[in-house]
Parts: sequence; structure tokens; C-alpha cells
Amino acid sequence: MFQTYVGPVQDASAIAYLRPETAQAIFAQFKNVLETSRQKMPFGVAQVGKAFRNEVTPRNYTFRSREFEQMELEFFIKPDEAVEAICGRAAMADEAFGIPPSGGSEPAKAGTPNPQPNWGWEAWHKYWVEQRIAFYEGIGLPRNTLVEYWQKPEELAHYARATVDILFKFPFGTQELEGIAARSDFDLSQHERCSGKPMGVFDEELRAAWGKLDEARKVELSKRYYEARLKYLTKTGVAPESAEKEAREDAEGLGKGQYIPHVIEPSAGVDRLILALICNAYHEDQMPDEKGKMETRVVLKFHPRVAPIKVAVLPLLKNKPELVKKALEVRDRLRPHLNVYYDDAGAIGRRYRRQDEAGTPFCVTIDFDTLGEKPELKDTVTMRYRDDGKQERLAIGELLDWLLPKIH
Amino acid sequence: MFQTYVGPVQDASAIAYLRPETAQAIFAQFKNVLETSRQKMPFGVAQVGKAFRNEVTPRNYTFRSREFEQMELEFFIKPDEAVEAICGRAAMADEAFGIPPSGGSEPAKAGTPNPQPNWGWEAWHKYWVEQRIAFYEGIGLPRNTLVEYWQKPEELAHYARATVDILFKFPFGTQELEGIAARSDFDLSQHERCSGKPMGVFDEELRAAWGKLDEARKVELSKRYYEARLKYLTKTGVAPESAEKEAREDAEGLGKGQYIPHVIEPSAGVDRLILALICNAYHEDQMPDEKGKMETRVVLKFHPRVAPIKVAVLPLLKNKPELVKKALEVRDRLRPHLNVYYDDAGAIGRRYRRQDEAGTPFCVTIDFDTLGEKPELKDTVTMRYRDDGKQERLAIGELLDWLLPKIH
Repeated sequence: MFQTYVGPVQDASAIAYLRPETAQAIFAQFKNVLETSRQKMPFGVAQVGKAFRNEVTPRNYTFRSREFEQMELEFFIKPDEAVEAICGRAAMADEAFGIPPSGGSEPAKAGTPNPQPNWGWEAWHKYWVEQRIAFYEGIGLPRNTLVEYWQKPEELAHYARATVDILFKFPFGTQELEGIAARSDFDLSQHERCSGKPMGVFDEELRAAWGKLDEARKVELSKRYYEARLKYLTKTGVAPESAEKEAREDAEGLGKGQYIPHVIEPSAGVDRLILALICNAYHEDQMPDEKGKMETRVVLKFHPRVAPIKVAVLPLLKNKPELVKKALEVRDRLRPHLNVYYDDAGAIGRRYRRQDEAGTPFCVTIDFDTLGEKPELKDTVTMRYRDDGKQERLAIGELLDWLLPKIH
Repeated sequence: MFQTYVGPVQDASAIAYLRPETAQAIFAQFKNVLETSRQKMPFGVAQVGKAFRNEVTPRNYTFRSREFEQMELEFFIKPDEAVEAICGRAAMADEAFGIPPSGGSEPAKAGTPNPQPNWGWEAWHKYWVEQRIAFYEGIGLPRNTLVEYWQKPEELAHYARATVDILFKFPFGTQELEGIAARSDFDLSQHERCSGKPMGVFDEELRAAWGKLDEARKVELSKRYYEARLKYLTKTGVAPESAEKEAREDAEGLGKGQYIPHVIEPSAGVDRLILALICNAYHEDQMPDEKGKMETRVVLKFHPRVAPIKVAVLPLLKNKPELVKKALEVRDRLRPHLNVYYDDAGAIGRRYRRQDEAGTPFCVTIDFDTLGEKPELKDTVTMRYRDDGKQERLAIGELLDWLLPKIH
């Protein structure tokens, strides 16, 4: 980690470190968020920001760097024992996702169902894997450029019940974009142990449901919760006697509606995602130049959602004040709502190419028909598409309603 | 500053510092931005982010803290000598802003005119002062809570030609939110001197205009540019002989269309602005409770643009599935476009109060009329205003178009 000193004196009491990940603040603030924003399980807290790791050997450019941008979601869920007490049983991933029971054919790709109260950790984990893949697809990374890798039991971190890596097929090899881990109640338990501040929640629904369980069920759920807690405590080095006592108290707490939430954590690198978006967008193709002769074109085919410039507004000619005036009007109409680039320098074909290189999905050209040279085309513009160079005519008044759904 | 070491070895070659302001990266990247984004003078680069200062005595809570959020704009302009060569003369603030020449009555408050090619540094500086005040007014800080303080000549930093502080009248005293400095060409000159990388620009318009000047004018403008450069170089400790030689070269460069841009820099603290917004929004007033009895209400009267929650969607009753279903439909219709809070817990009056405390400007209530109990009110909702508690009826289909202009 990067070490520094807070204040004028550089002694041991002044040592501080730059955060090596964004997640910890979420755990440290978990109870504050829970209480001030009136949340109930399950809910999530997301954060994006810089993280710093003082790597001895930074390499692979953006894949092991000392400063990077990270985005993490901590999604807090009830332990399965609580779900079972409330709903009778906890739905596993195959049930929640409508996949036929094992023994059937290939597991069906079922889209993402709406979350249900009876979901156990496995269903929630699968849900976030699907949501994250849908996110990547939604910003333009095709499904066949992504790899979903389920870590094998022997690869899992000791606190993880399951971890899925999402990888992207970079031109120079397949590399990880994100990990989605089911981390049990490890994180909040550790924060509770080390800070001495309680991280458990009280769940009224669980307390009410528990009272209606028969005795055998209570014993069974308590026993399982006891064993899970004991396993955690033992692994983290608590002496056997204290661990047993603490786990017993935790199991008693469950019956009163108390537990430490479990966590599903999607954790992604932003810099490498940007690199993936650029690699995926980069194309060289053939397109006719001004005189109809084919030439090689460099084009960044960004999804409109992530294109830095959404639309370019171009008067056909720079030296016709009516065209420029109208083009500036169109620019000013669009600019409050999306990122617009205005360009009047050079031949129109050259300006299209500039926008192709910048990845701008839409170009709007103001020409003499816009001004009414053909009366039926007055106040319409040419909409030119980056990917295939095709053009169509659109009314200025409709432009915004036409553009906004494509970039949102 | 906060010092740390990059890499495994803690020696002098590995020392690095956390940035004490966001501005420096803008200057360091000035030429990259200029060239890759095809800009011409004047243009600006803005940045928002964390800055760190290892204050010996942090105090006043958010006003002198070791970590803070800063937002800065470096707006690059031509030196006045270049403007004069191109446009004949450089408009000063009074001329640019339509203020009658001195000797007339009170300087008129003239709004903000559109920038003109003939503006000199003084007009640009005044422009940014007005723009920044308009920004604060636009997010809900009334003009009479703001103080515009023009620093006296003896208060100015040595490189500054003028600095205006914008202050806010906090309940505990008037404190600075922002400074807007006309910094001459000090910053880019310093970067050029210390990095050895040229920071000047080539201005084709200036080169062309210079050729058409008569000899006397060339001499006059060159002389003034020479003197300004000499003053800078001497102040920063360059030996007289070298300074004269360098300044002479710079003056010759001007005639060829070359100069170091000047800078207008609005630099604001984000944390203190948030505190100002909260202080300004906090009110206690009287409002009738459910039974019509007056009670004290705490309300945060945020401008809709900065309210964290824009609209709350509330079914009148939680235990009527038709109301809940309709309310969730309304929520889902608004949610892609603005931050919506859904709340179905407790009496409707109590839910309004909760949103008042959170500063939510609009509450939408779904009641039996929404479902068609009065057929003429089918698919309309109650729109309830935070500030005065007044209510009116709006059609669900119009909600988004009604809301968006208020929060943008």
C-alpha cells in the first residue's frame, strides 16, 4: 500500500494509507446507510473511485497499475437460514432462474427474472452475474467477446462460496474485467470483530416468522447458523472455546431476528473496461471518399451510450451565414441534453471522417434544403450514421426525441 | 503536502506527493487537449476531484481540511496584444458589459453578454465572475446570500491582475466559496520553464492580422508584449541579461502568431458549496398535521436541480394492491430519467414530512381517483409541493414532461 503521514509529525501514530480498494468504506458505513436511508434487506451500496496499490512490478499497462479506477457494489442479503425461516425454503439459482432440474437438457439461458423474497445466496449471486453481463452487453460488448468463468472450489478465497470472473477477449489475450463473489458474512463480521462496533441488523419479518416455526425447524436452522458462524470464527483464529460461545450467541440472536448480512460483491476495474470498449470499437473498413473512390476508414464503433460525443452538428458550408446560423440554432437546441460537437471546418466528407475517428454515432448536416430550397424539406436535416454511412432526412423538431432514447 | 513513496524502495528517487490542487494537470496537459480536441483560443478545460493538503492545524471543519473536493476551470485566452492586433483594440469590462463610461450614473447590472472576439482579459474575467454567480443562483443560492469581493491591488498574488472572491453568508459567518483570478500567462510560462516543454500556441489569425498592421502599431504592441514578458521573467528570478534576450524572442514570436495563452481561473471548493446549499435550504416552519393542527416542520428547501431525490412516489394506502401496482408503474416510468424514492410505509402526511426533511421538491400520490373512482380523474395523480404543501392534479402521461424542465 501507499503509506503517508497525516499532520506535521512523521511518527507511527500519524501513519495513513491510500485505500487499496473502494469496498471498505461501504462496510464501515454500512449501518449509517442502513439507518439513514431507511433500507431493509436486501439492498446494495455502490461506489466508484480511485484505488491505489504500491505494486512492486507494475506491468501489463492498465492491468497492474499503481493507481486505478474501481467500481464496486456490496449487495447485502439475508443469510439462507433467515430466508428459510421466513419463506419455508431458500430458492437456489436453478429454481430462481427457471432452469430445469439437473438431469434435463442443457441449462436454458433464461434472461434475468425479477428478484423474489425466497432467493438464497446462490440465486442472488447468479442474478448479479447475469445483471453484470447484461450491463456489458448494454454498453456494446457483444456476448461472444465475454467469458464467464466460474472459479473451481480449490481456486476460491477462503471466505468465498462462489466467484465468477467476467473476462473480455482483448486482441492481445483474454483478461479479467470483473469478479462477482459470494462472500458470505465475512466482511461485516470482520469489521464487527476489528472495530468492536456491531454490524448486525434486526429483521422484524424474521422475528415474526421464527415464532411460527415448529420446534424441530428452529433447532435445525439454529444448528446450521451456529455451524456457519463457528466455521467463520475458527477460521479467523478465535480460540475454540470463545468461538463456540460466540457462535451459540449468534444462533440465539437469529431466533430474535438478528443476523450479520451476507454479501454479493461485483467488483470491476474501470480503466480496463475503457480499454475493452476501445478495442471492441476499433475498426478499419472501406468507404467511398468525396469522389466515390473507396478508401480505408478508421472508425470507433462505440455504442451511443458510451460515445464521448453523441452527435456532431455540421453546416454544409462555413461561408454561408444562413447555414451557420441555423446550425448553431440546432446545436443550442441539443446541447442542454447531450454532448454535441460543432464543426464547420473543411469539406463535409472530411468532417464525417473526423467524427468516425472520434466514435460519434450521429452527424447532423444543415444544408440548403434545411433553409427551404426544396420547400417540402424546410427545417429538416441530414442524419448520417457512423457505422454504415447511410443518411436520412429528419425534422429538426423531432431530433431530440429521436436521439435521446438511443443514448439512454 | 502528503508525501509517499512509489515502488518498493523508500529513497529520494521514489518520493511522490498527493496533488494539492486539481489545476496542475490541466496545465501539464494543455497542449495535448489543444491539439487532440482541435481547439482554438479562447477555450477552457475544467476538472473536479480530490485534492490533499497536509494542514498542520485543520480547523473550521470543512473550510480547512486535509482532503477536499475541488472544481477548477482554466480558461485560456489570447494576450491583449494579440486581440488588439486582430481586432484593432481590446474591449475592457465596462465596454463589453455595456456599462456606461465612468462619470455616468451607477454601473448598470447588465446580465451576461455573449463573448466577443475583441474581449481583452478584463472583459473575460468579468464574464466568468458573472457566469459563476449565475451558476450559484441557478442552484438556489439567492443573490443576497452571496458577496462579490474584488481583491485590492495590495492583496493580489504577484502573478494576478485581478481576483474576485465569491463568498456565502453562512449562519456562522461569511466565508469564501470560490476565487476567480486573472492569472496572466504565469501558469503556462512556469510550466514551460520548469518542464522545458513549449506551451505556446500558434494563432493563424494573429499572424495574418499582424502582416496588415502599420509599422508604428507593430512596434507599440511588440514593446508592450516585451515588457510584460520581461516583467514575468525578472520576477521569477531569471538573470537580467537572459531575461531580456528571452523577452525579445517572445516579442518577435508574437509577430509570427506565437504566444503563451493567458488564463482566467475560477477555483471553487465543492464541500463548502454543499454546506452552503444545506444551510440555505434548512427551514423550520409551521404546517398543519393530519388533523389540521399546526405543527413545526423541518424542511430542506433545495432547488430541484440539487435535491438528492427529485420526486417521491407514494401509494395512498399500502394494503390496496391496485394502488401499490399503479404506484410502482409510475415509479418505473420516472426512474430511468430521475432519482425517484418509493415509500408506502405509514400515513401519507408522515411520508410527506419525511420527504420534506430529505428536501424532495415533489411528491406524487396515487389514490383511488387515480384508479378511476371519479372517472374524470382516472390516471391522474396528486402533485404535492414541498415548499408550501399545495397540491394539484396532473395526468400520469404528462408527469415526465412536467418534471424534467424543473430539474434540468
